[in-house]
Amino acid sequence: MNYKLTVAYDGTRYRGWQRLGEGTQSIQGKLEAVLSRMEGRPVEIQGAGRTDAGVHALGQTVSVRLSEGRTPGEIMDYVNRYLPEDIGVLSVEEAPPRFHARLTPSRKTYRYRIWASPLPCVFERRWCCCPERIPDGQRMAEAAPLFLGRHDFAAFHSGKTKKSTVRTIYAIEVTPVGPELHITVTGDGFLYNMVRIMAGTLLEIGWGEREAASIPAALEAGDRALAGFTAPPQGLCLMEVNYL
Amino acid sequence: MNYKLTVAYDGTRYRGWQRLGEGTQSIQGKLEAVLSRMEGRPVEIQGAGRTDAGVHALGQTVSVRLSEGRTPGEIMDYVNRYLPEDIGVLSVEEAPPRFHARLTPSRKTYRYRIWASPLPCVFERRWCCCPERIPDGQRMAEAAPLFLGRHDFAAFHSGKTKKSTVRTIYAIEVTPVGPELHITVTGDGFLYNMVRIMAGTLLEIGWGEREAASIPAALEAGDRALAGFTAPPQGLCLMEVNYL
Repeated sequence: MNYKLTVAYDGTRYRGWQRLGEGTQSIQGKLEAVLSRMEGRPVEIQGAGRTDAGVHALGQTVSVRLSEGRTPGEIMDYVNRYLPEDIGVLSVEEAPPRFHARLTPSRKTYRYRIWASPLPCVFERRWCCCPERIPDGQRMAEAAPLFLGRHDFAAFHSGKTKKSTVRTIYAIEVTPVGPELHITVTGDGFLYNMVRIMAGTLLEIGWGEREAASIPAALEAGDRALAGFTAPPQGLCLMEVNYL
Repeated sequence: MNYKLTVAYDGTRYRGWQRLGEGTQSIQGKLEAVLSRMEGRPVEIQGAGRTDAGVHALGQTVSVRLSEGRTPGEIMDYVNRYLPEDIGVLSVEEAPPRFHARLTPSRKTYRYRIWASPLPCVFERRWCCCPERIPDGQRMAEAAPLFLGRHDFAAFHSGKTKKSTVRTIYAIEVTPVGPELHITVTGDGFLYNMVRIMAGTLLEIGWGEREAASIPAALEAGDRALAGFTAPPQGLCLMEVNYL
């Protein structure tokens, strides 16, 4: 039977979603270990988004094939009992046989949280980027829609890939939430570090270090050097994956 | 010049507010070290509430005598620059000469947070008590007002004291907040572990393990054995200190 799991995690102490071999702490590895224990055989899972080291999730989505005989509620109870306290399964559902968390087309929503107050960030520092200078949220909100639509995001991407770097952004907004600014972005997929480079570019705009017009210029040129810095991982959270 | 500071901290990695000698991690010790560095001489501070190991604060209040020559804003910037990231000064004000954070009469408000959802508590576990069974918040809310008023809280107190154990509770409520229950209590002072034992007693009422009537019975008898367990420290936060 094919299942769909929704998973939340505090990524602080992990090397990221992806299992990269023995001895590295990954969220995928922790989940697979518990599911393998439950099944009595090695279990492999697929995650919708390969979040980086230090990145969090409230709505990571996983597909996995499990033997029958347990209800979704029993699977959820078992897994949550043995997972470390910084990873939790929020839902377990039966899924159509061809559902695959990564390959089935989806829209993903990420949120990037920025602490934007002169007061110290004592409690939110694990889930926020806490820059020394407070950015101008209005400038960032005005620039953000320049990312909307279908573009080649080669400039907003770390490393090299032979695959297409064209992605579509359906929605992006910068919203003040109490002492924070939240960048919330929905797209059909995200390249390695793409949201963090978009956040870093918007931050530089908010600091007055660059103009909004540098966004279309960087998209056009496809040159990483024309985009902003890679904002730190702890501000980023995979919020939701919606399958089409 | 006498100053009043408002301080927030994540108490997770500390042995509590109070400096207890060399080598123990205390919030008082960290603050005194930074203020002593600023002043170039040993500085002693007074805190309104001696929070326990693992207990947090959003509104701890401190009094301290400092040399003149720095504005409150300069003091705040200096201290926040050198404090660890889990302690932050939220405000610095000049205070009347006789103001003393602990001895000047005040009303203190504490909040105790309980995770009350069947879903795993991935992000809030550092600031919530996450019990295995979900308590009945309605039962807790109905019982809580039994603490109101002036009582001998000897039964709601750890250890022994020769001093008076009479305290006045001005307000207490149990409120559902999303997936959590918050116990918010205001009083003229709190004995060692008092809020945590009140929270533990209310939790046992919420689990159906004891009746609300056991609260006046325990207050009357002054017997620790008649009150509930000491709820864990991470759910507790000193919210506010109001001087009269």
